[in-house]
Amino acid sequence: MSERVFSLPRGMKDIDTPEMAKRLWLNKKILGVLEKYGFQIVEPTSIESLETLEAKSGPQIKDEIYYFPDKAGRNLGLRFDLTVGMTRMVAGRYDLPEPVKIAALSGMWRYDEPQFARYRHFYQWDAEIYGTAEIEADAEAIAVGTDILEAIGLRDYEVRVSNRKFTEGVLRQLGITQQEKVEQTIRVIDKSRKISPTMFERELLGTGLDQEVFEKISEVTSLRGSADHVLSSIPEEFSKNEMSSKGREELSRLFDVLNDLGKSEKCILDLSIVRGIGYYDGIVFEAYDKGGEDVGAIFGGGRYDKLAGVYGKREIPATGVAGGIERLMISIERASLFPRLSQSPKVFAAAVDEESRHKILNMVMDLRKNGISCDYDMKKRSLRNQLEYVDSMGIPIALILGPKELEKGLVKVRDMGTHMETEVKTSELIGEVTRKLQ
Amino acid sequence: MSERVFSLPRGMKDIDTPEMAKRLWLNKKILGVLEKYGFQIVEPTSIESLETLEAKSGPQIKDEIYYFPDKAGRNLGLRFDLTVGMTRMVAGRYDLPEPVKIAALSGMWRYDEPQFARYRHFYQWDAEIYGTAEIEADAEAIAVGTDILEAIGLRDYEVRVSNRKFTEGVLRQLGITQQEKVEQTIRVIDKSRKISPTMFERELLGTGLDQEVFEKISEVTSLRGSADHVLSSIPEEFSKNEMSSKGREELSRLFDVLNDLGKSEKCILDLSIVRGIGYYDGIVFEAYDKGGEDVGAIFGGGRYDKLAGVYGKREIPATGVAGGIERLMISIERASLFPRLSQSPKVFAAAVDEESRHKILNMVMDLRKNGISCDYDMKKRSLRNQLEYVDSMGIPIALILGPKELEKGLVKVRDMGTHMETEVKTSELIGEVTRKLQ
Repeated sequence: MSERVFSLPRGMKDIDTPEMAKRLWLNKKILGVLEKYGFQIVEPTSIESLETLEAKSGPQIKDEIYYFPDKAGRNLGLRFDLTVGMTRMVAGRYDLPEPVKIAALSGMWRYDEPQFARYRHFYQWDAEIYGTAEIEADAEAIAVGTDILEAIGLRDYEVRVSNRKFTEGVLRQLGITQQEKVEQTIRVIDKSRKISPTMFERELLGTGLDQEVFEKISEVTSLRGSADHVLSSIPEEFSKNEMSSKGREELSRLFDVLNDLGKSEKCILDLSIVRGIGYYDGIVFEAYDKGGEDVGAIFGGGRYDKLAGVYGKREIPATGVAGGIERLMISIERASLFPRLSQSPKVFAAAVDEESRHKILNMVMDLRKNGISCDYDMKKRSLRNQLEYVDSMGIPIALILGPKELEKGLVKVRDMGTHMETEVKTSELIGEVTRKLQ
Repeated sequence: MSERVFSLPRGMKDIDTPEMAKRLWLNKKILGVLEKYGFQIVEPTSIESLETLEAKSGPQIKDEIYYFPDKAGRNLGLRFDLTVGMTRMVAGRYDLPEPVKIAALSGMWRYDEPQFARYRHFYQWDAEIYGTAEIEADAEAIAVGTDILEAIGLRDYEVRVSNRKFTEGVLRQLGITQQEKVEQTIRVIDKSRKISPTMFERELLGTGLDQEVFEKISEVTSLRGSADHVLSSIPEEFSKNEMSSKGREELSRLFDVLNDLGKSEKCILDLSIVRGIGYYDGIVFEAYDKGGEDVGAIFGGGRYDKLAGVYGKREIPATGVAGGIERLMISIERASLFPRLSQSPKVFAAAVDEESRHKILNMVMDLRKNGISCDYDMKKRSLRNQLEYVDSMGIPIALILGPKELEKGLVKVRDMGTHMETEVKTSELIGEVTRKLQ
């Protein structure tokens, strides 16, 4: 036996049976909603060429991912999201009817510093729509996200929506025209809700903006509320900027569609939402569990019409939404929304002696054939020890077969909750067990 | 737009929507059978410490896997199977009622030379039973494997069973006593069905055996057929060896249990089955699709009572079974057992003009709420182009809403197969569509 300890690598973990029961429950809910929306599931490769990953996020992505040379010296990397792979998949195809609505629910890897509920391997669901620039697609991305939360039972959430075109237009109108400067400013705005107003001011002024510009940005990005209210509160001067006006118009149309979809109640316009990542260029949104903002957005997304052009010979308008499974599990846990879940079998067939051990196998297979999960003793234990095992596993029904039952052609059915026992004819067992499990 | 080509790394692939539809169908079948047998699903970590992987398979495993240092210089590796992780998970736990029946259905990575239907990332289902040395557990592993094939509809398969104890006993009885020599001989026996008899002879003699010993081995390992027949054909001299006798007795009891489980018909005793891998030490088995032996075993497994001791401070008897998803898909494809599968939505709601585009959204959400997968036009296309899209996507039902229908409170329901149209009241739409989809 080993004297060495084989520990898991830092930031990695196994998923054991109780956690897996929750994940299976959650995945089923998510896949069910994606299906109802007509998203088709795919699975992009887990290992990409490093250059594919860098093409989306620049060479500095190396600091945040697992990458390594293969045995032939080519640089590879583990995927850090699902959007890169899905976009590359679509960019290489010319035969797909558009819009292409695809989704994935899979694991990914990031070399982050592990923290509360954050591992270096984690899961996301991700739904993307390629091939349409219409606002309906953005609304669809938001709607599918909210319906996933609704399917789980989460009610106290809010989707905060804005538009990168609007924000960039505002910045340009304020004289911030250099692309690098625009992006730097946007990264600070992205942090604005997580840091103090003083810190926000210091960081923005730190990028070289003067006080007046800072105040204008601060005025705009603090606007938050119903679409009507926010849209009418935007200072008049920004309507002069074409980009910002277009963004504003898109937001107005988006909320009309959200209204038709019955989703506007859960959505607010929040002009501080910009999404940090560089490639967004239209509607952007983030959803928050109001009871758990500390874990960050429970889903987020937006429009990125340029990314497909990076991976293929044409641009394809695209919008999408993704959410982290582990974060969602925290919200579900906090709201006590997981039902009682168990992966234990429903029935255990206990045998009293050698002869009934023999006879019980047929019964076990018959139950299984009829769709009832069933186990039996594989350790040659006494009846008492078998029933202790049944208890410790939380199995609801025990069948007991011994010489007396065999002689009479009966089997004892014990409800492990109430400890009530009934005797049924072997031929009526399936019906009886099915009834008890309903 | 990009002039560069972003290709997939060698041996990697994306899973697109038609293939994913098949995998989702297959996974559901497999998970359903595992559940009925009381196996609980887990997911071991995808990245292990390199030393954990080496502990099972020796340092030469490096040649066959992806491994790399992390940013802190620790050596990591991508899992190459699910058994290592599941065994490590159980070896570290003292609180689990035994037997522990766990299973996984996940991806893994091997740095093999890619060939037909073999990629460097692939999937397996894997069911393991820890904590019992009884033969019933080995029978359970075989039974769950066969029931997975049955659930898929495969009928023309055969499980070939043997026992490593028996084979090792035979070799020892023949004077092959050095462990290294035993393993070397076993590796050649493992290949015996894949190479010509001449090649088999040459390879065995090449390990330094003399002609007489080779002939004895060849006589034993060519025995194949019903358990009764094979067990009674084993040359008398091997009953003198304790290990070989124990192996023989286990095989005899195993076939009794398989008989009780209704599985003996599909199982034969084949004394050439040894499983190449070092850690097996009891019952071993491999299942073959009779029409597709070229792809290799469609599942295989056996007993490995020593492995848990490598990962923990105690030995835990263990047995299990695993099968490759990609190989299984080839068998299913060849036998034309995949049903017609599509991930396309069932309904598409087409709108004739602006007003009906507006009105249709409510209808779409209502269908989705009632569990019916439904999509609508997000590209502002003409009705004709919408219906072309519906056709190209293989969506069975189109709803058509225009000013005439709006006025009458009706919606047209078109069966895309027959092109038959009916008009139904908006309030009766859900019922009508549900009926048509049955």
